[in-house]
Amino acid sequence: MASDLHFEDFVPGQTYDLGSVCVSKDEIVAFAAEYDPQPFHLDEEAGRASMLGGLAASGWHTCAMVMRLLADGLLNRSSSKGAPGVDTIEWKRPVFPGDTLSATATIQKVRSLVTKPDLGLVFVRIAVTNQDDLPVLFWENPIMFAKREMAP
Amino acid sequence: MASDLHFEDFVPGQTYDLGSVCVSKDEIVAFAAEYDPQPFHLDEEAGRASMLGGLAASGWHTCAMVMRLLADGLLNRSSSKGAPGVDTIEWKRPVFPGDTLSATATIQKVRSLVTKPDLGLVFVRIAVTNQDDLPVLFWENPIMFAKREMAP
Repeated sequence: MASDLHFEDFVPGQTYDLGSVCVSKDEIVAFAAEYDPQPFHLDEEAGRASMLGGLAASGWHTCAMVMRLLADGLLNRSSSKGAPGVDTIEWKRPVFPGDTLSATATIQKVRSLVTKPDLGLVFVRIAVTNQDDLPVLFWENPIMFAKREMAP
Repeated sequence: MASDLHFEDFVPGQTYDLGSVCVSKDEIVAFAAEYDPQPFHLDEEAGRASMLGGLAASGWHTCAMVMRLLADGLLNRSSSKGAPGVDTIEWKRPVFPGDTLSATATIQKVRSLVTKPDLGLVFVRIAVTNQDDLPVLFWENPIMFAKREMAP
């Protein structure tokens, strides 16, 4: 596995383009049927009758699709060791069948770990827009990366 | 769709049992292959070499499985209208193949919406433990519910 990007390479203010993904109705319904079977994620009529205004993806599905972009576009060419959690998620707009989502990751701050000197935390803000350039999703989370200068 | 629980029914301190779910290696790998293809979620050897200590589920997969428990155990017998986001997620321990996850939802606070008088926000804390009763996941999020006494 390529591991080009290490903790030392991340600088606050940098933005990484994570590319884009298009979602179909079948994918929206399949995810919802397995993980989030609320009527407005499964059925067009229920979607239209809801605050979403139409059949729309589970917010967790949107996060999962963007996680794929983050893994392909950044983490899998880095020394990422995973994340302890997420600080905040904002679902700003519904995601409808046929929408194309584009994501960026912006480095907010970096911090060495006192207890694990071979690792550091990089705080990342993920921003996602749709094909109309309207905000769909934000999340912020700390991700652990190994340092290039590993402890012995 | 049954809609027994409305905004007025939620009181801070109440806890709802959401039941449990067991996860297999095949499910862990299938989710990761689609949404979070980091080596430690896909491959046993990479998992053992990682901080997780073994092939372990994507944290987003764990959230999705618990979302299913929340939908089946609470939201789909309520007037839920969806959620604007998540305030925090803590992934406390890895989820390994064969683990059984049990979840509860505890009501933290409730708040009427000034701009939408027929709705209210219920702030819920989700707590998830494994078969050894060890904490695996927490999240907190506000969920919108219709009031029983709907505005005209």
